[in-house]
Amino acid sequence: MILLHHLRIGRSLFTVWQLEELGIKYSLKVYHRNPETFLAPIELKAVHPLGKSPVLEDGSLLLSESSAITTYLLEKFDTENKFSPPREDIFNWANFTQWLHYPEGSVFCPLLVRMLLLRSKEPHATLTPYSEREVALHLTNIENQLGENEYILGDKFTAADFGVTYIVSLAKRLGLLHSYESLNNYLEKNLARNAFKQAVERAVE
Amino acid sequence: MILLHHLRIGRSLFTVWQLEELGIKYSLKVYHRNPETFLAPIELKAVHPLGKSPVLEDGSLLLSESSAITTYLLEKFDTENKFSPPREDIFNWANFTQWLHYPEGSVFCPLLVRMLLLRSKEPHATLTPYSEREVALHLTNIENQLGENEYILGDKFTAADFGVTYIVSLAKRLGLLHSYESLNNYLEKNLARNAFKQAVERAVE
Repeated sequence: MILLHHLRIGRSLFTVWQLEELGIKYSLKVYHRNPETFLAPIELKAVHPLGKSPVLEDGSLLLSESSAITTYLLEKFDTENKFSPPREDIFNWANFTQWLHYPEGSVFCPLLVRMLLLRSKEPHATLTPYSEREVALHLTNIENQLGENEYILGDKFTAADFGVTYIVSLAKRLGLLHSYESLNNYLEKNLARNAFKQAVERAVE
Repeated sequence: MILLHHLRIGRSLFTVWQLEELGIKYSLKVYHRNPETFLAPIELKAVHPLGKSPVLEDGSLLLSESSAITTYLLEKFDTENKFSPPREDIFNWANFTQWLHYPEGSVFCPLLVRMLLLRSKEPHATLTPYSEREVALHLTNIENQLGENEYILGDKFTAADFGVTYIVSLAKRLGLLHSYESLNNYLEKNLARNAFKQAVERAVE
């Protein structure tokens, strides 16, 4: 059975959501951050050399990259392509792949920098303008991609919405969504899905 | 035909390398950074809303995430699985997917922060320790994964080596590889491949 190593608080809640959404049976092992440093506990180092979360364990397989976990879960469990275009539909599948990689590959970094700057209360000559410029660029890009659509790739929820929802929720937590009404609506709608509520019930104390 | 929008200097050289390695016909459109700000020129905004590079154009398809580009090129052109395990070999394919996502998903951010800190010559209370800790963690992780192997997934070069080579080359450019002998060797070996040399010949003035 799938075992998810789940660190409170962090992005692994969004992996729990995927497991719920895909209807996969799984067990959870919960870890807690150091309340002072907010770093992951040393126990996670015994699970995976990076000592981070999520880590998905399936037999001898260990995956720690959120979007690689999504790709794996789709390949193994979403055999009817409910959550992604089939590969034969190569244009839509390629766009899906772009939006699957984009949140972690491009958007997370400026948000993390912003979070660390906020936490320290100390601005920086190059990193503050970098994070401000890039966060605005990417939130605007996501908003434009959404347009009038319900979901990031159109009128149908896909697995690309997992990563985008995570990144938008992080931006919200950092107080960066004031001028992005459609992103607020998008976030609210996705977090109101039954599978997300089940994830919260199971994974959040 | 594939058109690659290629910004000098940056990661798109590594996309050119992939095109050469896979034997794909392509054309290049070259852009140059602003010599003062080092930012991409405004012309790239007309190509893709993020205004970054690489952007791969194939008919009406536009892809801007490096690892999504790799995934697409493999799907369309590597039909004999010369550069990745077949999906039916799900354990090895999943590990490959993990290492395909990992460089951009986890390693690039602390390296970029390090680069921006070095460029400003101004340390920062939380971002300096973040970048030092994370860069060391990831370079050590890559070194451990390599072990005695020639390539990141064993004795065979795969498409996962493209992203890892890029990230290791960036670390080298930032002067961070002194104590990582095997990473230096790995980098030297990959940059000596014929396809990389052809990429340099075609894409570097």
